[in-house]
Amino acid sequence: MRFFSDNAAAVCPEAMAAISAANRLDTAYDGDALSARLSGAFSELFETEVEALWVATGTAANSLALAALCPSYGSIICHRDAHIQNDECGAPEFYTGGAKLLLGDGEGAKLSPETVDGLIGSIRKDVHQVQPAALSITNATEYGLVYTPDEVAALGELCRSRGLGFHMDGARFANAVARLGCSPADLTWRAGVDALSFGFVKNGGMSAEVLVFFGGEHRQASLYRRKRAGHLLSKGRFMAAQVLAMLEGDVWLRNARAANDSAARLASAAGDRLVLPVEANEVFLKVSPDEAEALRSQGFDFYDWGVGEARLVTSWDSDPAHVEALATAIEAL
Amino acid sequence: MRFFSDNAAAVCPEAMAAISAANRLDTAYDGDALSARLSGAFSELFETEVEALWVATGTAANSLALAALCPSYGSIICHRDAHIQNDECGAPEFYTGGAKLLLGDGEGAKLSPETVDGLIGSIRKDVHQVQPAALSITNATEYGLVYTPDEVAALGELCRSRGLGFHMDGARFANAVARLGCSPADLTWRAGVDALSFGFVKNGGMSAEVLVFFGGEHRQASLYRRKRAGHLLSKGRFMAAQVLAMLEGDVWLRNARAANDSAARLASAAGDRLVLPVEANEVFLKVSPDEAEALRSQGFDFYDWGVGEARLVTSWDSDPAHVEALATAIEAL
Amino acid sequence: MRFFSDNAAAVCPEAMAAISAANRLDTAYDGDALSARLSGAFSELFETEVEALWVATGTAANSLALAALCPSYGSIICHRDAHIQNDECGAPEFYTGGAKLLLGDGEGAKLSPETVDGLIGSIRKDVHQVQPAALSITNATEYGLVYTPDEVAALGELCRSRGLGFHMDGARFANAVARLGCSPADLTWRAGVDALSFGFVKNGGMSAEVLVFFGGEHRQASLYRRKRAGHLLSKGRFMAAQVLAMLEGDVWLRNARAANDSAARLASAAGDRLVLPVEANEVFLKVSPDEAEALRSQGFDFYDWGVGEARLVTSWDSDPAHVEALATAIEAL
Amino acid sequence: MRFFSDNAAAVCPEAMAAISAANRLDTAYDGDALSARLSGAFSELFETEVEALWVATGTAANSLALAALCPSYGSIICHRDAHIQNDECGAPEFYTGGAKLLLGDGEGAKLSPETVDGLIGSIRKDVHQVQPAALSITNATEYGLVYTPDEVAALGELCRSRGLGFHMDGARFANAVARLGCSPADLTWRAGVDALSFGFVKNGGMSAEVLVFFGGEHRQASLYRRKRAGHLLSKGRFMAAQVLAMLEGDVWLRNARAANDSAARLASAAGDRLVLPVEANEVFLKVSPDEAEALRSQGFDFYDWGVGEARLVTSWDSDPAHVEALATAIEAL
Repeated sequence: MRFFSDNAAAVCPEAMAAISAANRLDTAYDGDALSARLSGAFSELFETEVEALWVATGTAANSLALAALCPSYGSIICHRDAHIQNDECGAPEFYTGGAKLLLGDGEGAKLSPETVDGLIGSIRKDVHQVQPAALSITNATEYGLVYTPDEVAALGELCRSRGLGFHMDGARFANAVARLGCSPADLTWRAGVDALSFGFVKNGGMSAEVLVFFGGEHRQASLYRRKRAGHLLSKGRFMAAQVLAMLEGDVWLRNARAANDSAARLASAAGDRLVLPVEANEVFLKVSPDEAEALRSQGFDFYDWGVGEARLVTSWDSDPAHVEALATAIEAL
Repeated sequence: MRFFSDNAAAVCPEAMAAISAANRLDTAYDGDALSARLSGAFSELFETEVEALWVATGTAANSLALAALCPSYGSIICHRDAHIQNDECGAPEFYTGGAKLLLGDGEGAKLSPETVDGLIGSIRKDVHQVQPAALSITNATEYGLVYTPDEVAALGELCRSRGLGFHMDGARFANAVARLGCSPADLTWRAGVDALSFGFVKNGGMSAEVLVFFGGEHRQASLYRRKRAGHLLSKGRFMAAQVLAMLEGDVWLRNARAANDSAARLASAAGDRLVLPVEANEVFLKVSPDEAEALRSQGFDFYDWGVGEARLVTSWDSDPAHVEALATAIEAL
Repeated sequence: MRFFSDNAAAVCPEAMAAISAANRLDTAYDGDALSARLSGAFSELFETEVEALWVATGTAANSLALAALCPSYGSIICHRDAHIQNDECGAPEFYTGGAKLLLGDGEGAKLSPETVDGLIGSIRKDVHQVQPAALSITNATEYGLVYTPDEVAALGELCRSRGLGFHMDGARFANAVARLGCSPADLTWRAGVDALSFGFVKNGGMSAEVLVFFGGEHRQASLYRRKRAGHLLSKGRFMAAQVLAMLEGDVWLRNARAANDSAARLASAAGDRLVLPVEANEVFLKVSPDEAEALRSQGFDFYDWGVGEARLVTSWDSDPAHVEALATAIEAL
Repeated sequence: MRFFSDNAAAVCPEAMAAISAANRLDTAYDGDALSARLSGAFSELFETEVEALWVATGTAANSLALAALCPSYGSIICHRDAHIQNDECGAPEFYTGGAKLLLGDGEGAKLSPETVDGLIGSIRKDVHQVQPAALSITNATEYGLVYTPDEVAALGELCRSRGLGFHMDGARFANAVARLGCSPADLTWRAGVDALSFGFVKNGGMSAEVLVFFGGEHRQASLYRRKRAGHLLSKGRFMAAQVLAMLEGDVWLRNARAANDSAARLASAAGDRLVLPVEANEVFLKVSPDEAEALRSQGFDFYDWGVGEARLVTSWDSDPAHVEALATAIEAL
């Protein structure tokens, strides 16, 4: 009974069926009919004209976005616990040509405008220091919290006034939208976001994430950078296919809701054990080493999170029986 | 009737079935059971212990190999028509941190030891000039010729004596092996090759190529570079699955033979029109613009190759009827 | 009797005196009074508002200029014999983050508009190929020829129409201006040049070259890049001092004229032995190995240039007696 | 009366005389007789065979050292207040190709072995995280404290056991040696240091710092990197001359002692106002804004250091009368 990562989940039937259906001759790279529909499909979803590029990983999407928004001699403001800082082996530095990450604090991996403003203010405006050029937030965060449209907009307003580009790492964007019940537009470009890494793999996709640019000026350079990074797959139709299938009929939202619901069930079982509110598909709870061992001995698989805490991650395909069993087991601790 | 690129071919049934079968829970990234088998499977194929890493594109495989073999301040010797020079948007420069490509000539995109030696000799041994650090050849070449084991060994011997790393871009390695009937070992490490980009996508795979290191010293750094480049897919089992399925029962060889056979049929029809011998799955032939138009009007799709020439590429799934039709049409010109 | 390089010449008295005079307290980096005068002094010389940055080497000046004009995924068109290609150990690749150099031919290291246009035309307009972003020419060239204002303007017009940035490596800009008798403005911005590496070290300076931007948009980024490359010296006043001293009273022109005159004397002695016209301070002449040996045995120091040719370089401080002696010796061969 | 930076000091007479004396013909770059003596002179000073390279700035020396010790996918442990983190505009990231800086705390910009060990321990040993590859400390620190040979050796031992390269930023190395009265060898290679940026400019030089490698394996790559970064000056004899002149007769030590003595005088005047012990040539003291204003109104020039603190920096040429006057003024506050 797996609760250690949504990365390990299966591919949802809609995505798998679309991949099978794409197994026919078509033009190579992103010249195929499916890839050609990508920007249109996301433009519809976001209620504005966007540029959408498929890539194989969230790390690639994030890095291409950051390379578009930050020069080699600039810095990217992000949370100390951000995936781009801790889990991408320096990909932002590689793609930008050596930009710095400027780290802020905040509960649950969320940054406030005050924190961002303080970080900007900590940098002297001279050539000896690397100047902030972009802000990157993760929504839902690495700790399963969400930024509301208003919270994003406050940061977006700050970016605008300070001349920063604004990137959202949306590896779990679907979970955030599912939680908030807002429109994708309200959570992104209407709140000032310039580029979104829209995650599909954790949410039932196989191998495709989508980099969405709101505003067209970054498209051409990003196409070159994608190719140059080896991310222009030669049979791109399989990339587009899985994503389009998940947009159709809002499979992406349905999948995310399922994951969120499973997490909510675990949260209600956890009660006072919760380290943080559960707003998406991650549950952080206090458990002693003995308690963790007890859960594991019942067949539940999850990560310890430092000493005395555990991380439980649900996914679109979490088995309700497993969730219920884990909830019961937590209550019984 | 498509003859413009093997990149556009379908995925072979064995690969597709393996992908479907891999659609179950497993550990993320390359920690899954299938990925764990990769180095072993390739070690068996190459009759020596190798390190094998899946990546999504040949460009990524090539660039990771070159970054392992050439420092930022070095240069990579390759043919003027090499894919790494002309068709990867500067990926080698990106991954190496700014190495140079040092270009040589030779018919059909083949480099001779004399040419390579001449290029090395053209560089002064001082800090003002970028010093050669690696040689990269493509086998089968971009023009469908093959290097024999002896030819590779002659270059390998030169690399050894000059202290160069030796990379083989094997986007069509299967076609070369199929043509030569040699062992993969004889064509690579026994001939001095340090790193091979082993292509699967053009040969019936969906999205996985394999970077093979003969000798373990480059493995760890390459794992970091792969992650840092955003090429460590989170559901890596789908990558390993398709490759392993194509190794089993020598599907990779069977597919390549089919493609080569189709090209041979076209070559025999082309006769004096051939620009180069046909040794793999590419046919370059002289056709006037009117003749090219005549072929297209019969439904054959292919690239013009400069003025008065055309490139025909066959693939594992070239329809025999289409091949026969095209052969007949060429004969009838 | 030295004729092997103007790099080895002494520092002219005006520059040395200015350096001594600058040996007093002042603000660090480029905040001092002398550095503050730099852009003004060059604006006056060029009859337009320019931005001028001192750096310690021509390689640094060239690379900062190219990094301003060419993105990491672009290419720089230059001559096959250009200093940036052959004598900077890959500095352009380093500073741009991995751009390519696209090489053209032409006698005496000069590029014609036709050649540049042909190179542009050789690149497919797709993401697989690195797209040309800038043109770099050297004036006077590495072979001692000069581009006239009209020739520069023809290239400048091409750059404008094709959207390329235009850089001039002016390591021997002074020699070109001295030869042509034109205004610095006519040879640069009025002819479409965006950035000039204005050389002083070969011409009597100690350690300062000046990067001149015509148009202000590149200034701020270049200041960051200069610092980031370790080229913002902490006692910058010594850099500005030597350059300002050489601008005053046109010392730079006088020095260049002296070097050119010495070369002209050698050229007249060389007669039919000349490989190329002598338009600046370099003389390439045909001499057999025995003849070269004969000259060396008389105390003349110079570089062989391939087999059967020699390169003689004069400088601002070439001793007239040495020049006369060499001229006589050449005539006597 | 200047106390804001030793960067702004004059060039000492010995260095200036040597520069004048070097104003004669010699081979270009670092082929001249003076440059050829550099490694020998530093080998003598350090009582072991070292490789010494001149460069124009401390930023260049630091970055070349770090590029030698840390791969692009690694990280460099340093203090949060380190010059390489705060005052080099991302030069380490540029030269390494995008390495990370991993920041530690400690009073007065000093790192303890415990802190370094804790930072190493905070990084998971997997490919998702950037692995520590080098440690960089500054001696004397940015806050004017010194590491003793024993303290350096403790860090050196940690580096050895953890496989880290060890770099010392010695912009004020002379001040540290002068303070400690130890041998340069004891403070560096005998304590495990691999590379030292040996500062001369703040200590009376004009434009030359020296990168010293203890152990020869980094020399060749660093020569290429220096050229590639545009730091191989063409009249290198002026670089070597000033440094050699400061080594002769221990001018470097005498200059540093003078600066330290001036700081000590100020420290004794400051008494309880001292924020940190004064061990080199920097004095941090508590002064209210009114008090700072009072000092400035008497003609003393210095930096505020946050709110309520000031930084006073002395240099080799601090005028004793100015120092005495400032000491008196501080006492009178």
